[in-house]
Amino acid sequence: MQQKKILLNDSEMPTQWYNVLPDIPNGVAPPLDPGTKQPMGPEKLAPIFPMGLLEQEMSDQSWIDIPEEVQEVLRIWRPSPVVRATALEAALGTKSKIYFKNEGVSPAGSHKTNSAVAQAYYNKREGVKRLSTETGAGQWGSALAFATHKFGLECKVYMVRVSFDQKPYRKSMMNTYGAEIVASPSPDTSFGRKILEDMSGTAGSLGIAISEAIEDAASRDDTKYALGSVLNHVILHQSIIGLEAKKQMEKAGDYPDILIGCCGGGSNFAGLMNPFLRDKLEGKDIRFIGVEPTSCPTLTKGLYAYDYGDVARQTPLLYMYTLGHDFIPPGIHAGGLRYHGMSPIVSALVREKLLEPVSVHQLECFEAGKLFAQTEGIIPAPETCHAIRTTIIEATRDLNKPQTILFNFSGHGLLDLSSYDKFYSGDLHNYDFPAEDIAEATKNLPKI
Amino acid sequence: MQQKKILLNDSEMPTQWYNVLPDIPNGVAPPLDPGTKQPMGPEKLAPIFPMGLLEQEMSDQSWIDIPEEVQEVLRIWRPSPVVRATALEAALGTKSKIYFKNEGVSPAGSHKTNSAVAQAYYNKREGVKRLSTETGAGQWGSALAFATHKFGLECKVYMVRVSFDQKPYRKSMMNTYGAEIVASPSPDTSFGRKILEDMSGTAGSLGIAISEAIEDAASRDDTKYALGSVLNHVILHQSIIGLEAKKQMEKAGDYPDILIGCCGGGSNFAGLMNPFLRDKLEGKDIRFIGVEPTSCPTLTKGLYAYDYGDVARQTPLLYMYTLGHDFIPPGIHAGGLRYHGMSPIVSALVREKLLEPVSVHQLECFEAGKLFAQTEGIIPAPETCHAIRTTIIEATRDLNKPQTILFNFSGHGLLDLSSYDKFYSGDLHNYDFPAEDIAEATKNLPKI
Repeated sequence: MQQKKILLNDSEMPTQWYNVLPDIPNGVAPPLDPGTKQPMGPEKLAPIFPMGLLEQEMSDQSWIDIPEEVQEVLRIWRPSPVVRATALEAALGTKSKIYFKNEGVSPAGSHKTNSAVAQAYYNKREGVKRLSTETGAGQWGSALAFATHKFGLECKVYMVRVSFDQKPYRKSMMNTYGAEIVASPSPDTSFGRKILEDMSGTAGSLGIAISEAIEDAASRDDTKYALGSVLNHVILHQSIIGLEAKKQMEKAGDYPDILIGCCGGGSNFAGLMNPFLRDKLEGKDIRFIGVEPTSCPTLTKGLYAYDYGDVARQTPLLYMYTLGHDFIPPGIHAGGLRYHGMSPIVSALVREKLLEPVSVHQLECFEAGKLFAQTEGIIPAPETCHAIRTTIIEATRDLNKPQTILFNFSGHGLLDLSSYDKFYSGDLHNYDFPAEDIAEATKNLPKI
Repeated sequence: MQQKKILLNDSEMPTQWYNVLPDIPNGVAPPLDPGTKQPMGPEKLAPIFPMGLLEQEMSDQSWIDIPEEVQEVLRIWRPSPVVRATALEAALGTKSKIYFKNEGVSPAGSHKTNSAVAQAYYNKREGVKRLSTETGAGQWGSALAFATHKFGLECKVYMVRVSFDQKPYRKSMMNTYGAEIVASPSPDTSFGRKILEDMSGTAGSLGIAISEAIEDAASRDDTKYALGSVLNHVILHQSIIGLEAKKQMEKAGDYPDILIGCCGGGSNFAGLMNPFLRDKLEGKDIRFIGVEPTSCPTLTKGLYAYDYGDVARQTPLLYMYTLGHDFIPPGIHAGGLRYHGMSPIVSALVREKLLEPVSVHQLECFEAGKLFAQTEGIIPAPETCHAIRTTIIEATRDLNKPQTILFNFSGHGLLDLSSYDKFYSGDLHNYDFPAEDIAEATKNLPKI
């Protein structure tokens, strides 16, 4: 019998995170103080992040213990399954083997919950009462709403306007977990009020929502800020994905030729990929492919430079691929991929040519997601469809050279079905970022 | 370490269904021909059901092989997990142990997919090209849409109007799986047109939708009909739930004092309960509690009598608890529990006092569902909330007498979040079926 699902028991869940920082050739450039443009120590970030996370952000330790309290919550759904997509393979007529790591089984429906639980824990431990955050697709906001409730914290979510309007069920979910939600730009912050005045009717962006959430945290003593991707400590928490997947591929008696994941801020893909990095550095023949939308092609068309993480230029300067901190991507439906920047870790791996970035069009992604649903049963999030589209391309590229592919099924699309409706009714279109826009979009990069 | 999830591997999935019929004390009365009022053989039902299912409907075999083609599809998500609800236990401050069987992991999100796959298979095997069906909450329609697509059949779903309007994402899901959906009563059948004329603005009912789907199947040579609950073959297919759960409880080194499930047509609860029935008949001290809404109290306030399964009186007469085939329950949100009748098997088990029926109010159910989501992470379907509410009552009834409870988590509520929104905004109310209505509701029972 072909084994369909490769499961791990509770006791096989990793008890340490893997920190990729010490293993990245030529390292990752440090964040800079947005005022002095000098490298920034953790003390400068202490007003908005707890020390437990700041230590992880800059740690040179390869392995970091997962606190027992965090493990206990993660075990609600972890270890997550690795599944062999046999029905998709059959539909494609390929001899390639397709595996996926199903992060859609978490309470909020995506990998985001992995970091949300850890972040809520470290904040709680340091006496924080309330967290503020932004959310694009709604996945991160839901995850943090769940996690903060588990640790008895309050939570305020600034949700990008376009997603707020398109995904009413995400609001219901956050309400169920007890969080407060507002559409961003919002009247609740001075930055939000300014944007509402200057850009009436804007669809919003992650960059704007981040500015609002940071302002919220910086202006209240009881509140700190939580970010769902990009930063090193988030990438660290997501390493549990790849650590589990490695064990599961061993159990299956297999090893991937290609790892694939979608890239918005980079955390789901890095979470899968990083635990396989040492193998690659030691000469293993394995490809890492990061997938982004053609409408927001940070890795494939952006500049590699220091830039702000937000529109209001409140964050430290991060060395990363960027389309410019004031770039507002078109309102495509893969809200989680609408970010101008990229994790400095993922950016460094692209620089070192360890990760291959590609971009794909959204219509083909929805088509791939529909095929996946019809074969494997699960309806994927629009973000995840990007990974599936690329998986299909690689699995059928050369039928005489079957590949073993493992992709990260970052989240289900059950709360994104209005996007599918728009796809079915022909209301969605492909969007190519015109090359000439890059210069325009990045003209406000800070001078270092 | 407390084991949170009790998993089975692919190879531990049962390969036979358990048929409870031969084990029911004093048996189950046969269906009667609605014309002659005489017991009805399979040949009379052959126009609307395939023989493979009709044989199962009347089988005296205790064990029936699950075809390999059906097993292959079931293995996409089965075996489903049994989870210890440790966080819910802690929140309740009870020493009772609460386990749940998570049927929400199926593609369509509920236990319904178990029977949908089997029904699609047997129809396909006998050359059927198209299936018609009804759906209340949308769970069954989605399940059959998925299953028919897997076996290359077309599918038409008559969806009860009130659910059609409240659950737009269910339509999107069925579209994704390639089914055709229409609100019932619909203009697509002569019965639907008659109801639209006589009862303009009606919320519809399962009884009406069943009539429409049967008319569709009876009027086309390429089409047969599929029912998602009530019938013996559906109960048979659902036995895989309890068979797995028994193995899992053994793995956990535990045995339930109480089994709990919600009852609409009876299939999810019977699926969990039936494989434990022999233990009870042999003297094991185990209670079976079936939970229904106070607004549609078939088992607790209905009559035990022969009645039609549908409003148009096209179905065979079934001996069951009923509120009258022309009873239209109020439009409460647990759409899957809005059925006037009940599985003859479940009805017989109530008659034999092997199963205890109880009814609960919907507001308390939503409150229970919210607590479950906040503790165990998963948002339950409104139907499932009925089982959770009763679980909480039993787990806290006597703190000095802790119980071991296993309930069936029949489905997730991610596509029912608009019902939660109505609960949060105070738009939902409790509804008691007034005792005097029973006589009125059942005045049209057929004379036998």
